[in-house]
Amino acid sequence: MASEFDLIARYFTRPTRSSGMVQLGVGDDCALISLPANESLAISTDMLVEGRHFLAGADPESLGHKSLAVNLSDLAAMGARPLGFSLALALPSADEAWLASFARGLFALADNEHIELIGGDTTRGPLNICITVFGSVPIGHALRRDGAHANDDVWVSGNLGEARLGLEVLTRHLKLSVDDTAIALQRLHRPIPRVSLGIALRGVASAAIDISDGLIGDLGHILERSALGATIEADLLPIGSALHSQDHQTQYEFALNGGDDYELCFCAPPAQRENVIAAAQQAGIAVTRIGQVTEIPGLRVLDHAGKPLQVHSKSFDHFFNP
Amino acid sequence: MASEFDLIARYFTRPTRSSGMVQLGVGDDCALISLPANESLAISTDMLVEGRHFLAGADPESLGHKSLAVNLSDLAAMGARPLGFSLALALPSADEAWLASFARGLFALADNEHIELIGGDTTRGPLNICITVFGSVPIGHALRRDGAHANDDVWVSGNLGEARLGLEVLTRHLKLSVDDTAIALQRLHRPIPRVSLGIALRGVASAAIDISDGLIGDLGHILERSALGATIEADLLPIGSALHSQDHQTQYEFALNGGDDYELCFCAPPAQRENVIAAAQQAGIAVTRIGQVTEIPGLRVLDHAGKPLQVHSKSFDHFFNP
Repeated sequence: MASEFDLIARYFTRPTRSSGMVQLGVGDDCALISLPANESLAISTDMLVEGRHFLAGADPESLGHKSLAVNLSDLAAMGARPLGFSLALALPSADEAWLASFARGLFALADNEHIELIGGDTTRGPLNICITVFGSVPIGHALRRDGAHANDDVWVSGNLGEARLGLEVLTRHLKLSVDDTAIALQRLHRPIPRVSLGIALRGVASAAIDISDGLIGDLGHILERSALGATIEADLLPIGSALHSQDHQTQYEFALNGGDDYELCFCAPPAQRENVIAAAQQAGIAVTRIGQVTEIPGLRVLDHAGKPLQVHSKSFDHFFNP
Repeated sequence: MASEFDLIARYFTRPTRSSGMVQLGVGDDCALISLPANESLAISTDMLVEGRHFLAGADPESLGHKSLAVNLSDLAAMGARPLGFSLALALPSADEAWLASFARGLFALADNEHIELIGGDTTRGPLNICITVFGSVPIGHALRRDGAHANDDVWVSGNLGEARLGLEVLTRHLKLSVDDTAIALQRLHRPIPRVSLGIALRGVASAAIDISDGLIGDLGHILERSALGATIEADLLPIGSALHSQDHQTQYEFALNGGDDYELCFCAPPAQRENVIAAAQQAGIAVTRIGQVTEIPGLRVLDHAGKPLQVHSKSFDHFFNP
């Protein structure tokens, strides 16, 4: 049985290829980061637990990717540029094959985003992955939840609902074509954090959040913090193609409440429409205007006839509610 | 069953009483911190797991204190001034009494150190507490592990071994007087991070680490990173008073390998002795010179006759090795 220190050294220590801001990485009591003048440090923490955020026996390589991706998604929603991350990992045993595979998925994404593992902790215990990410954003330019204004457009990136579809396939509630299954599982296991889009939306979007718990719940956080309401047109929702074989009710339900999409939902004044499109093109991701922020509180979803659609009004904590 | 968001709101959201550096706390995708020019951000993460870092059924108020204290101890070992922390918490159920008590212990220490909870995550799962702390230290003045020099003195703060004694009492391997039991359990459950000492040692100590896994193991990290050795005189070790009723072998063993002391072990040139004493007086904590850094690699512990003492050479991962 390798010790705590052996495990860290073997899988989670790499030479620091510094961005200039990471002065000291893994191997001391603390990591050290410096920031340029006029930049804030953006920080977010997500904890992933077996049986709640992923199923027992989940592929460790995908898990390595997803654990970092969901954290980077929080930086994206803030318009922050990723700098580095720390990893705290509880493992039931020092399973080398698991660790090697997890590290491969984790570092592939880290390398893709040009960020460093700057520190962390490993311990024996029920599988638990806790990542804290660090990014930088010019002071005053972060995309906060409380910045929306009445009459702002409501936008989402990419498409919605396929991650939830993937979960239904995995738990054998749904059968799909081979192609749709592949798309849905890819969306569930390998979410792509919209980092470039978040950065491009600085000064363009008035508020933003990432969709981890479902559009309804997450947009609800923006509205709550901004003390406003919104009207969403169901026909405008960008439904993922793998969902097209499902009935309309399922499509709407998964797109509105599915969770785990890790797309950005953001608000922007109508005068910024061209800039939003330009930001999306720069980031290489589609964006769709789905509704409008209102003075009237509450979140309304309207069908093609302008009638309120019956949807669950409450976000899931995460799908795996017991 | 309260939702994830309800729990966060109720126990872990407080108005941010900012140090000026915390711009945005709990409630958005990320927290935002700014730093004065010429300061680095020091970051450390520790994960505490039931059955490994604390026993099942541990008092939640003490656990709240200790979870933050062990993280602050890493900042102390770096000479960093604490700014804030994030908390990720997995709980088997939304036990309100547990949460209230845990939060009380956590925030009492946070208030004492004038720091903010700036963000985090709560989820259902086997009990797991993951805290990431943030502090500031002038660029180039952090107390790193790799800064020791041959002929530096080796120092420790406070006294050693009582936390391990507390664990032995708790697991019923030892019986002590009522007074010694109280001291030992206090040391185990309520470690005091040596934050003021760490700050006062900037520019005085050449290297530092906090003693979480035992003096031998932790001093070993300094020596390894500094590519040096050390000689420790067992007679000079500051043995905690609650240990005085034990035989010498037990005293040495607990002081050298006990773990969970959260004192600082640091190195400083002999020319700095007066400054070390002054720093300790300023911080209100005793310090003891216990040996010397050597060019010769390895760590030697000598008895009163100058003969090598037989001690375990390996640090515990943590006491609760299965």
